Amino acid sequence: MSLIVQKFGGSSVRNIERIKAVAQRVCNAKDQGHQVVVVVSAMGDMTDDLIKMVHEITPDPTPRELDMLLSTGEQISISLLAIAIQSYGHTAVSLTGWQAGVQTENLHGKAKIKGIDVHRIQKELEADQIVIVAGFQGINEMGDITTLGRGGSDTSAVALAVALQADVCEIFTDVDGVYTADPRILPEARKMSVVSYGEMLEMASSGAVVLQPRAVEFAAQYRMPITVRSSFNDHPGTMVKEVSDMEREMYVSAVTHDCNVTKITVIGVPDRPGVAYTIFEALAKARINVDMIVQSTKAETVTDLLFTISSDDTRQAVHIIEGLIDELGAQGLHCDDSVAKVSVIGAGMVTNPGVAALMFKALSSAGINIQVISTSEIRISCLIDRARVQDAVRAIHSAFKLDQDPSELPPSPVDLL
Amino acid sequence: MSLIVQKFGGSSVRNIERIKAVAQRVCNAKDQGHQVVVVVSAMGDMTDDLIKMVHEITPDPTPRELDMLLSTGEQISISLLAIAIQSYGHTAVSLTGWQAGVQTENLHGKAKIKGIDVHRIQKELEADQIVIVAGFQGINEMGDITTLGRGGSDTSAVALAVALQADVCEIFTDVDGVYTADPRILPEARKMSVVSYGEMLEMASSGAVVLQPRAVEFAAQYRMPITVRSSFNDHPGTMVKEVSDMEREMYVSAVTHDCNVTKITVIGVPDRPGVAYTIFEALAKARINVDMIVQSTKAETVTDLLFTISSDDTRQAVHIIEGLIDELGAQGLHCDDSVAKVSVIGAGMVTNPGVAALMFKALSSAGINIQVISTSEIRISCLIDRARVQDAVRAIHSAFKLDQDPSELPPSPVDLL
Repeated sequence: MSLIVQKFGGSSVRNIERIKAVAQRVCNAKDQGHQVVVVVSAMGDMTDDLIKMVHEITPDPTPRELDMLLSTGEQISISLLAIAIQSYGHTAVSLTGWQAGVQTENLHGKAKIKGIDVHRIQKELEADQIVIVAGFQGINEMGDITTLGRGGSDTSAVALAVALQADVCEIFTDVDGVYTADPRILPEARKMSVVSYGEMLEMASSGAVVLQPRAVEFAAQYRMPITVRSSFNDHPGTMVKEVSDMEREMYVSAVTHDCNVTKITVIGVPDRPGVAYTIFEALAKARINVDMIVQSTKAETVTDLLFTISSDDTRQAVHIIEGLIDELGAQGLHCDDSVAKVSVIGAGMVTNPGVAALMFKALSSAGINIQVISTSEIRISCLIDRARVQDAVRAIHSAFKLDQDPSELPPSPVDLL
Repeated sequence: MSLIVQKFGGSSVRNIERIKAVAQRVCNAKDQGHQVVVVVSAMGDMTDDLIKMVHEITPDPTPRELDMLLSTGEQISISLLAIAIQSYGHTAVSLTGWQAGVQTENLHGKAKIKGIDVHRIQKELEADQIVIVAGFQGINEMGDITTLGRGGSDTSAVALAVALQADVCEIFTDVDGVYTADPRILPEARKMSVVSYGEMLEMASSGAVVLQPRAVEFAAQYRMPITVRSSFNDHPGTMVKEVSDMEREMYVSAVTHDCNVTKITVIGVPDRPGVAYTIFEALAKARINVDMIVQSTKAETVTDLLFTISSDDTRQAVHIIEGLIDELGAQGLHCDDSVAKVSVIGAGMVTNPGVAALMFKALSSAGINIQVISTSEIRISCLIDRARVQDAVRAIHSAFKLDQDPSELPPSPVDLL
């Protein structure tokens, strides 16, 4: 008998019909003899509807009260799912975040999970119950309800799987698994059967929104295998786990793209120590993540500082930097929303030289200009014109032969050059 | 500085506009220098909407999961109200039933409050917060969310007022206060400035739905004064409290009516011991309250047993009694939905003979036949034709001169006969 944690996102429970379908799927897992813990998000548009009500009152609600409000979304889902499962003749019990023992730090809106007291869940499992837990939420030391931020239900599911020492954590979503590229823009993209934690993390941080990065980090830390699969069919999904070289399909696994990127250039900055620090410290204090950074010396004493941020943060970042222009002695600020980032990701690239060269060749052959480059051990990213994203993904995907059956290892990138 | 508990029902918070109006009213009380604890129900149709979703799954949800679901209604109200109050510049904190320390027995759907641990509320009051508590809900020993049943928010408010030793509990509703008769059917009905607990309790049990009977019982037990007033205007309401004879306005306070009554007659029951017991035990086990009871002997050995119940219970009661007809050796069952109950209520009637006679005279003069009579120390009720309810209320109201200014005590009922 295995212990399985299954997580269903908002689109999987967006109406009563879908909740019944999820209930059926959960009952099937139980019928196969497993112990089942289910983590559920709020129904489809529920969270947005609640936020709409708040905005009729004020644009700026306090985070504590917003968490109190939004956490009702999952509470509605868990009780309806429990009722549906019970109507199919199984025993089930729903638990809110605090009832499930999910303890978080005291930061409303994006709290991190500090620990899970699994006593209640274990008691219910021993009583042969299907246990349904509200994702996305927990409780802080003061006994106040907190939320984990967008997509936090993935993290809830993985954290529960780890705390309960589950055999696997299944993340059900509206796609069949993890693809070599976004199948919405590249139909020939291939579903991967397996991907490593590191690759999944780079993908999640590079525009592939299948799994929350924090959930992947957590799973990697505790070696908890995750299966990503569709809640709409029975296709086998993608397994995210520790992958040995023997299991590795390709030295490059996938191409990702991210159009939610803004390029900011601080023009004519005096080339002296402390300038970059002043800017990035101010952004960090506002919790704005800076991604790619380039400093190019124009003349002897003046430089341009260029970096990218999430487009969601553009307004705030511009406001902050405009306040620093005088202090820095800079000449001005330029903000460009017409860019996108494409990345190749693959744990095998460390030991296979030529990956970067093959990527640049593919983009060059397609006539696409590279504005900025950044790399990690298992990722290479290029900033390009947003209008050329689809062409870029197709060119790179094709150059690395990612659409081919991985059963025979592809030639090395050097041979493909 | 007083401590005030204010309770707002579903119609008082039925949309964002109303929530803002309630927030303004709460802020006014705070500005007057009071400590304020607010108890809120779910927004208008929220509870019905949630139940509608459940009924798309099953007609028969488990009570535990239904409580988990329905309790989100108040959680939404309290957070929105807190956000509205904060947007007016006051500090406020919302608390669910369990956060507010409301402990109940382990009976889902209609749990009774066992006690309230007021530590958290007191801490927040000391920090100068307006405290907003979810009505209608609590937590049982197992840490599961319970609800108190329809109208339970009144009970939450009174129980909190008692536990916090508040100076007064203000119940805001959609009427101006407690009237000498239902102003919807008798426009000349007069708003009472004061009414005793006992009278209020008899009124609540006799068709005047201004306050939940359980809330009144609780207030009476702990001598907590309640003010019933409108959330839509600033008129002074009605004070429900311990009333001395000096303060008493009239020996009869009000006329109530209840059209939600069904008369059931078990025909031709053998007149032997145990018959009534068999019937009423079966009804009690199904939690059906029996109100008026008459047993009339027709012949020497056969009797008719007549009683009234709430019309909500008719179907279930008929089903139960039909199953007993054979065992009882009865001839049949008759069920009459065309009846109503009118009552006069007044703590002063004990010491003023002639009240019953005056009531019967008023009905008789209006040509209204009395089918059944029942009495308590401070109430006389008559079962009449439902079509004549308005006439009956008017005739009785007028006979007792309830529309007159109570500043000069009316003549005794004997003089009015």
